[in-house]
Amino acid sequence: MAQNIYDDEAFFSGYSALPRSVTGLDAAPEWPTLRAMLGPLHGRRVIDLGSGFGWFCRWAAGEGATAVHGVDLSDRMLARARTATSDDRITYERADLDEIELAPAAYDVAFSSLTLHYVADVERLAAQVARCLVEGGTFVFSIEHPIFTAPSSPRFVADEYGAAWRLDRYLDQGPRTTDWLAPGVIKQHRTIAAYIMALRHADLDVTELVEWGPSPDQIAEHPDWAVETERPPFLLVAARRRV
Amino acid sequence: MAQNIYDDEAFFSGYSALPRSVTGLDAAPEWPTLRAMLGPLHGRRVIDLGSGFGWFCRWAAGEGATAVHGVDLSDRMLARARTATSDDRITYERADLDEIELAPAAYDVAFSSLTLHYVADVERLAAQVARCLVEGGTFVFSIEHPIFTAPSSPRFVADEYGAAWRLDRYLDQGPRTTDWLAPGVIKQHRTIAAYIMALRHADLDVTELVEWGPSPDQIAEHPDWAVETERPPFLLVAARRRV
Repeated sequence: MAQNIYDDEAFFSGYSALPRSVTGLDAAPEWPTLRAMLGPLHGRRVIDLGSGFGWFCRWAAGEGATAVHGVDLSDRMLARARTATSDDRITYERADLDEIELAPAAYDVAFSSLTLHYVADVERLAAQVARCLVEGGTFVFSIEHPIFTAPSSPRFVADEYGAAWRLDRYLDQGPRTTDWLAPGVIKQHRTIAAYIMALRHADLDVTELVEWGPSPDQIAEHPDWAVETERPPFLLVAARRRV
Repeated sequence: MAQNIYDDEAFFSGYSALPRSVTGLDAAPEWPTLRAMLGPLHGRRVIDLGSGFGWFCRWAAGEGATAVHGVDLSDRMLARARTATSDDRITYERADLDEIELAPAAYDVAFSSLTLHYVADVERLAAQVARCLVEGGTFVFSIEHPIFTAPSSPRFVADEYGAAWRLDRYLDQGPRTTDWLAPGVIKQHRTIAAYIMALRHADLDVTELVEWGPSPDQIAEHPDWAVETERPPFLLVAARRRV
């Protein structure tokens, strides 16, 4: 079972103030890349695993998706997401992604943004995603990059060459407890290989793999993002359900 | 064109003294994993890209391969490899893997150990490998892990949590000059995504991805290897030529 930190009052308050919570998808610097990986959603049935405030669900409906189903564990986030729309193509469900059972061949596209690193059993979830997709269906997701989730103490250190990421415990998979917005946030560290092999075991063929960092244009606009090129903050993956 | 450091006298002398040069495959701690990824070689036609002293070529012939072709850039290494066998199933060729042209559908299995990080154009080489394999053929290779090749100054630093790898420049792909056995050894740093996408563009489907570190048994035997679990030293990949 995944930790439900998003219903923690201090965490929820901090998370609600993040640019991507206030402004939505366009405040997420990796969004243009993810959007391009999704392809057209017109006429598609879409599921969003970790739907949060519902920004993606509302966007997908706006793109012409015929049905959009958001799944989240946080009652607070689901309440706000439900308040924000009256579109009857959009439905929400409270569920733990470590326990969810998805209906077979119910969706054309599955999406998940920065959620799978909270899931303990990614092999199980990948199998569920494969099951809920039609043959040829698409799974696009982002996670915190394994280089980012691995360390005992995730931070940059400075030396004569500039900033370097302090990397340890990369091959030691399992929970990591960090203080981010609130103390005691538990993320599940896995290697890149563990994610790729979980997809493969579920007959999900990787079609795109992006170790995301800011573009030169983004760095020109936000010079403090330059350090993110020393190690990628996010891993973006597109996979296709084998026919 | 790849640097031919293996013909540098100091480098060659240092390399010749490494356990894997003296004792062969069994001195390479990642070899059991690579061997399992290869599958049976009996009756197969095999190519080894970066064949070095020929340990793999001789082993493959011993496993019953019908033809084994070793390719290397180093005259010194090819000379020693040729001296070490009189098996007429084994042939050697001097070629630069950045310029090589391989015959179509000539091999069942392509292998490469710790060589592709010297190749500048991995998209081109992946296309050549795909071309030289029969449909359904196997490509198994190891490289220095991108986390290992990225840094300005590859080394561990110590702090209150123990040893951590000093990681920077991960997203800055291109040559890195290091002093290993000799000064000025040039390796090509690429991200994991760049390798995976090069395979995909060449219709080579990844079937196994291993971010290799020593096993508990290996660490029990060689306690100084434990630090390698902080960041993987090698990336091992198996791919299958799409049918």
